[in-house]
Amino acid sequence: MTDIGKKIDALIRNVPDFPKPGIQFKDITPVLQDAATFREIIAAMAAALKPDNLRYVAGIESRGFIFASALATELGIGLVLLRKPGKLPWKTLKATYQLEYGTDAIEIHEDAVKQGDKVAVVDDLLATGGTATAAACLLRDAGADVRKVLFAIELDFLEGRNKLKQAGFAAVESLLHY
Amino acid sequence: MTDIGKKIDALIRNVPDFPKPGIQFKDITPVLQDAATFREIIAAMAAALKPDNLRYVAGIESRGFIFASALATELGIGLVLLRKPGKLPWKTLKATYQLEYGTDAIEIHEDAVKQGDKVAVVDDLLATGGTATAAACLLRDAGADVRKVLFAIELDFLEGRNKLKQAGFAAVESLLHY
Repeated sequence: MTDIGKKIDALIRNVPDFPKPGIQFKDITPVLQDAATFREIIAAMAAALKPDNLRYVAGIESRGFIFASALATELGIGLVLLRKPGKLPWKTLKATYQLEYGTDAIEIHEDAVKQGDKVAVVDDLLATGGTATAAACLLRDAGADVRKVLFAIELDFLEGRNKLKQAGFAAVESLLHY
Repeated sequence: MTDIGKKIDALIRNVPDFPKPGIQFKDITPVLQDAATFREIIAAMAAALKPDNLRYVAGIESRGFIFASALATELGIGLVLLRKPGKLPWKTLKATYQLEYGTDAIEIHEDAVKQGDKVAVVDDLLATGGTATAAACLLRDAGADVRKVLFAIELDFLEGRNKLKQAGFAAVESLLHY
């Protein structure tokens, strides 16, 4: 485990049976409240994205916004929003994806990216990878060059990384693995 | 209008009839995509908060997260999340408030702030002020010293500032007024 990984791990609160029985939720709010650790996370994530010469960081609603926004200002690049259906006010592109029961969807504005724009997708946590894969596919369909998919935390046993890889997104990084 | 106000105004997209007929929505996504303007907004908001010697910036879900998170890392302070009901996994405090039709609510974690912690509430836009006032009251009830309520944009004609003032929050600032 890396230094920053250890610091995150020490602050995370494990909440049993959330959002449903049998699931243990990784609560990152104590991490965000710790100014020094939060700053260090953003610095480490920014270092991971620096070589990609990005035009945009794309944040997944809503915890992804927290990391993507701070990264955009840190790197001096633009921020693109990937939002839940019905939230973006203008013309949108939508990707629908499978959940355990039923489906969910994610949207971006049609003019969010231009052909060839280098983009990284950012979220707080990689679990089964459904949302992140849909987000990356949506950006690619819109013409973006998705250089990296970056997370603060990754739950290795759920193999979300494989789902991303099968969809053509092999550059996946996370600060902390469980 | 201030310089940064003019820059924001030039990038905002007015979307008619969103989220419902008769409402003109101020779409900030083109502002966030413009790296230089987004950086300048965060710098101006950080300058507004600097004198308050804050412990935390509190962001209102979900567009408030975008500004609050970048401000927290810019100022080197912690981030507290004000979220929609059912989203925070641990023990929460909840404030319910009136909408035009019906009610809405907002939550924070019980341990989000300690007695006397200096906090600013941050959101993208001040409209009628229902959500921002509920958020500020919730933080005050939890023991925080709410020093400022800060927005990128304020719709003066909806008089949200009065609602905040009546609840005891007179220190309200916005970068751009309509």
